[in-house]
Amino acid sequence: MAENLTRASYTVESLLAVTVRVFNERGYDGTSMEDLSRAAGISKSSIYHHVRGKEELLRLAVGRALDALFGILAEPKAVEGRPVDRLEHVVRRTAEVLLAELPYVTLLLRVRGNTTTEQWALERRRDFDHRVAELVQEAVGAGELRVDVEPRLATRLLFGMINSVVEWYRPGQRGSEGLPDAVVQLAFGGLRAR
Amino acid sequence: MAENLTRASYTVESLLAVTVRVFNERGYDGTSMEDLSRAAGISKSSIYHHVRGKEELLRLAVGRALDALFGILAEPKAVEGRPVDRLEHVVRRTAEVLLAELPYVTLLLRVRGNTTTEQWALERRRDFDHRVAELVQEAVGAGELRVDVEPRLATRLLFGMINSVVEWYRPGQRGSEGLPDAVVQLAFGGLRAR
Repeated sequence: MAENLTRASYTVESLLAVTVRVFNERGYDGTSMEDLSRAAGISKSSIYHHVRGKEELLRLAVGRALDALFGILAEPKAVEGRPVDRLEHVVRRTAEVLLAELPYVTLLLRVRGNTTTEQWALERRRDFDHRVAELVQEAVGAGELRVDVEPRLATRLLFGMINSVVEWYRPGQRGSEGLPDAVVQLAFGGLRAR
Repeated sequence: MAENLTRASYTVESLLAVTVRVFNERGYDGTSMEDLSRAAGISKSSIYHHVRGKEELLRLAVGRALDALFGILAEPKAVEGRPVDRLEHVVRRTAEVLLAELPYVTLLLRVRGNTTTEQWALERRRDFDHRVAELVQEAVGAGELRVDVEPRLATRLLFGMINSVVEWYRPGQRGSEGLPDAVVQLAFGGLRAR
């Protein structure tokens, strides 16, 4: 029984990896179950053995990215300490999760459509952004962040910078190990020498 | 004759505005001349009177964004003074051009494909980024920027922040008049209060 569960979850896991690659290449709307079957090298009925269809695969894939992102907000360093330090932790860890779960976060950031699952993903992304915006607001209130930039605008620009990574980062690229640090240094300290 | 030229150029201008909207909504690949004819409310032969086809419309549209961006690099404040001040000018003006030419820059940033025009647009975007990366490098050399962030990485994160604006900015949105200032303040000074 345990053996079976392990094999079954391995299969969903590897199916998901293939699915995410195909969704990112062709777009969710442009991908058929036929495409997934071909890319995974297994029959459509084998896929249906594990999931109800394409939309469930999308939910599992973006769910993985969302769980990783929301997990950050529950980490001790995100809930204890000065607001600015908690914010810095969240920014650094968001960049780390983005690199560790690159295809899943890429898919999440490209979700646009009108299915229930896509609407749910957009809603959870907004929740996450909102939680971070609250942290920015808290840090402004504590006098730890500059007050001349509006908190929601600052949050958007901050995520714009972090999320842009999915557009240009290629795994193994030189200098990528320093990426989360660079994001934190730029976001909190700015480019200018002091 | 002058009257004719004015009418003709007005027509191309308004055709372009419609084209860019449709390209941004449906994607360049997903748009047919039929779609453009319908959206513009003029016949396909009227469109062909002005341009050779869809690819020429793309070239005119992304060319408009590219001309505006390269125009920044020729402005007096981009060529005279300390490197850090020139860089700051370029960053502020890039944000301003993005807002002023939002649909055109959005289209430029979404170009991905394999036509000659798309390849040309990608190449010119890389040129622009490269010119800015040189300015970053120059400012680092002059000791005006922090040295612990690699210049190419800094340039990418900087543009990631600026370019993200096309994803979330809606014309007329509250607080948008302060956007170029906010970008400059965040990019050069960072979020942290001093």
